[in-house]
This record gives sequence, structure tokens and C-alpha cells, in this order.
Amino acid sequence: MRDFSVTILGSSAALPYKNRNLTSQIVNYAGRLFLIDCGEGTQMQLMKLKVKFMRIHHIFISHLHGDHFYGLIGLVSTFHLLGRKEDLHIYGPPMLEQILTLQLEASLTILVYKVVYHQTNDFSAEILFEDEKISIASFPMSHRIPTTGFLFAEKQHPRHINLEATEKYKVPYISFNDLKAGNDFLKDDGTVVKNNLLTIEPEPPRSFAFCSDTVYHNELAGRIQGCNLLYHEATFMSDMAEVAKAKMHSTSAEAATVARQSGAGKLLIGHFSARYDNLLPLLEEARSVFPETYLAEEGKTYQV
Amino acid sequence: MRDFSVTILGSSAALPYKNRNLTSQIVNYAGRLFLIDCGEGTQMQLMKLKVKFMRIHHIFISHLHGDHFYGLIGLVSTFHLLGRKEDLHIYGPPMLEQILTLQLEASLTILVYKVVYHQTNDFSAEILFEDEKISIASFPMSHRIPTTGFLFAEKQHPRHINLEATEKYKVPYISFNDLKAGNDFLKDDGTVVKNNLLTIEPEPPRSFAFCSDTVYHNELAGRIQGCNLLYHEATFMSDMAEVAKAKMHSTSAEAATVARQSGAGKLLIGHFSARYDNLLPLLEEARSVFPETYLAEEGKTYQV
Repeated sequence: MRDFSVTILGSSAALPYKNRNLTSQIVNYAGRLFLIDCGEGTQMQLMKLKVKFMRIHHIFISHLHGDHFYGLIGLVSTFHLLGRKEDLHIYGPPMLEQILTLQLEASLTILVYKVVYHQTNDFSAEILFEDEKISIASFPMSHRIPTTGFLFAEKQHPRHINLEATEKYKVPYISFNDLKAGNDFLKDDGTVVKNNLLTIEPEPPRSFAFCSDTVYHNELAGRIQGCNLLYHEATFMSDMAEVAKAKMHSTSAEAATVARQSGAGKLLIGHFSARYDNLLPLLEEARSVFPETYLAEEGKTYQV
Repeated sequence: MRDFSVTILGSSAALPYKNRNLTSQIVNYAGRLFLIDCGEGTQMQLMKLKVKFMRIHHIFISHLHGDHFYGLIGLVSTFHLLGRKEDLHIYGPPMLEQILTLQLEASLTILVYKVVYHQTNDFSAEILFEDEKISIASFPMSHRIPTTGFLFAEKQHPRHINLEATEKYKVPYISFNDLKAGNDFLKDDGTVVKNNLLTIEPEPPRSFAFCSDTVYHNELAGRIQGCNLLYHEATFMSDMAEVAKAKMHSTSAEAATVARQSGAGKLLIGHFSARYDNLLPLLEEARSVFPETYLAEEGKTYQV
């Protein structure tokens, strides 16, 4: 099974707190690295964790609050200084291009590589990237400024060849791709061997949903239905529910409710307010609603 | 004698390297904190080093290369989130205001405190700030984009009262401020007591010069003549002199030459290229020209 994992680079909300850095995550899919959000200090975290960050070709920015993107211009500049050659695709709200461009102009920097900007929208879900193995979509969140979540969805795997069966029915190798695609096998004598006799059901495709920042609302779960791993912000605990609502953030219990409603496999909570030195109460609160909850711990990698 | 010291927050050039952060320094003058440059991660360094950074009221940005200011927007935002009330004065090149304003607009942030922008120029020296104790001036550097250095100069201290002498000559307390200012004392009988009989020479005023980034040029030393402490960039060693010149940076030996020419008391070198894991060769090179050279080590405080 292909690698599909998420590494947490930062777990703090709004401002850095002690050893907690600002939001950023690396999604590794079969060795391809995708960066989600890029708070200040992300490049330092990438270096510290020895991530081969020149292999990042796609960066997804959820919204333009500083704790989610102030590190992007530094990373873009570092790619330049390191002589990057490959294009870099940046997906985010419209003003992002203007902000980065202005800062590059101020330093008279003409990047040695190409940045391709892709504007996201916060009113409908949209595929941002896809190849034969994975698709990455944005979907609307509800926050104080336009914000999107991101859904990384593996595509349906090909069926596995049952080698014993193909030998028994004398299926030539040349037909294997047909079998993997689900087709039946037509023998020379005109008889048909049903595909399910020759192949084995593949693993179901996996998905990872990233939800930060957002107030709780009951449409969200529908957009990420059945995801294997859900990262959801949990800025506050339930005793701060009114504050959370006013700031359009979620509580730990609300994050867990979204996980339960969406039928997620596991929930990672993060984007913790600096008011919480000890995070265990947030974890306990979420687990009371959704037992398969884990804290998004910096430097740790979680399998999807 | 009043505190007058410099704390190094970052010593790396261009990009962060292992544990070396990007350029930023705190000047403490009698408990007042001034920030020079603000590379990405500066707010984390301020927190890590437990600097009472809400006490910073003046920030000086030398130039708009990212390694010198990409952390400023994060610090400005953090001041906002922490409910700052006092004005913040930011001194830097003209485009700085536009860059910060655009990013605050993107997040629909209206700061809860006032930022007062002061544009610097790179063609003549200029006093940026002064009170009765200290003056802070900018002066031109020679770099690829408009860049200034900063000179923190203590004002002449008042003369010290010689209490034995004032008793002997029966000088009333009410005249002490006159004496401190250097005036003679006029006795009731009309005779004059010379000031130097009644007072002691004060300590000479101290100064700190910050020079980053710049190519070596022989006018620089004249602008910082007699400074007690000179921080000068030393991005490269002399075997890279041609590269240094092309990039308009200085070598360690050139930094030391400026220190010698300016009659500096001590030299701190910093802004080290990531090509140097071990910094001792840079130190040795500088010391061969100017023995009183020290490495700018992060977290360390140097007396002016």
C-alpha cells in the first residue's frame, strides 16, 4: 500500500506558544510532498524535521490569517536561494499572489523558478489538483474571512491479479491491465471468465481532510464523508464555546462531533489556543464524543 | 552607568541554518528596548529568550531583503492579539508600510494600537529618534537595494558632582544641576569657583553601530567613528571575496578592516552564510585584522 501520511509542523493557533509552532502540515502521498498552510517558521520546522522540502511542488493555503501563511514568503525565497528549478504551484485566496509579488518586488527579486498561482474560492467545492492516483479538492469553511478546507482523496486502486487463478485460466500477462481495470477475460474458445474469479478486491481508497479554521456548522461533515483521517481545529474547550463561536473557531467537542458525523476513521485535533498549556483536557473532551481522537503533535507523522 | 547592551536574536544570512536564525537584535538602553531588523522567526526568538517584547516601541529595518524583515508582520500581529495599547514606531524603507498594510487588509485586521511609519533614506545620515539620553541615526550602506545602518549614540552624560569639593566650597544643592551642566559656581562674595574643581569628568558617551548588509567601502568607517561596539556583517571569508563583492556583502576581514578604520572598541561579526558550519575560521580571519572581534552568538548579550 502506498505511503499516505500527514506530518504536523505546527499546532498553535494565532501566535506561537512555547514549543508550539504555527499551522503547517506535510502530506506525503507515495513520496510526493504537499504542504498545507505555512505559518511563520515553517521553513525552520521543515529543516529541523529533515523534510526534503525541495520536493514540495504544491502548497495549499487555507486562508489569509497570518498564522496560516506568514511563513510562505520565506519559503518561496529560500527555494529561490537554493536554486530551485521546478515550478511551484500555490493554491490560495486571490490576494495571496499580490502579497507575495509585492514582497518580491521590494527586494528586486526575480525568482529563478516559476510560481503558478491558483485562486481558491470559498463558495463551492473544487478540484485543485489531480493525477491518476490522487485528487485534492478545496471546500468551503465558515470563518471570519474566506477560508477553505482541503480533501486529499486517493483514487480507486486497480484490482489485484490473483496469480493462481490467472495461471489456472491461462490468462496471458498482456491481459493483466484489462483485468486490473475490472474487465472480464475472453478466452480463445469464446468463453468468458468473470473478472472476480481472476482478481482480488483492492484496498478501499483512503482520504484525508484538513479543516482549519472554522466555526462548527452541520454542513461540514457532508463534505468530508467517510474520510479515514480528519484534522480539525480545536482552538478552545467547551467552556469557551461562546468565545469560539464569536471568533468563528471550534471547540474540541465540536471537532469531535464533525468527526462522528462524517464517519471519520480517526480525528487529529490541533490549532490550540495559547491559553492551554496542558492539552490533555482538550483530548479528553474530544474523546468523550469521538474516542478515536489524537492530539496533533509537532514532528509526529500520522498514517491516513 | 546605564545599561547599554545588544542581544543577538539571529546570526544567519539569507536563510536559516540549523540553529542559526535570521537577522534581528535587541538594543537595551537603560531598560528601553529597540529592535533592529526582524527576520522570520524573530517573535519565537523573543519568546524563547524571555525578552519582554511588549516593551519594544521602536523597530528599525535596515532593508527589504526578506531575511531582515519577513518576521515583522508576525510580530505586529502578535502585538495586536496581545492587546497592545502603546504606539509602535517602525523605521524602514518606503515600501515597508505598503507591505504590512496589504497583509493586514487581507486578514481584515484593524490593529488595536497605532503603528507610526517613518521612512528611511539611503543617501544621507539622518536622526530617526532622540530623547535627552540617546540618539538613533540611520546612515547609508552599499547593498543591492536601499539599505541603511543604524547608530545608537548615547548623549554626553552630565558631569559628576564632587561632593567633597562642593562641601568645601559650600555649594548649595540647588546649584548642582548648574554644575552638572558644566557651569562655574559664583559665590556670594562674587568670586568664581571653576567647574572642574567641583565636578568630575563623566564617562564618555558610548555608541553602538549596526552595519548589515553592505559591500566594503571606505566611507563607512567615517560614519561610525569611535563607536564602542560595532556589529558588522561578515557573510563570507576572504577566499570568497569576489562572491562577496558581486553580492554586495562583506568578508570577515573586511568587517574587521571597518572596525580598525573606525577605531571601534569591539567588533561583533554575524550574518554568516549557511556554507559555514564552523564559524571559528571567520573569527580567526577577523582577529588577524582586528583582535577585539567576537562572534555574534544567538541568545548572548554584549555590553556596548
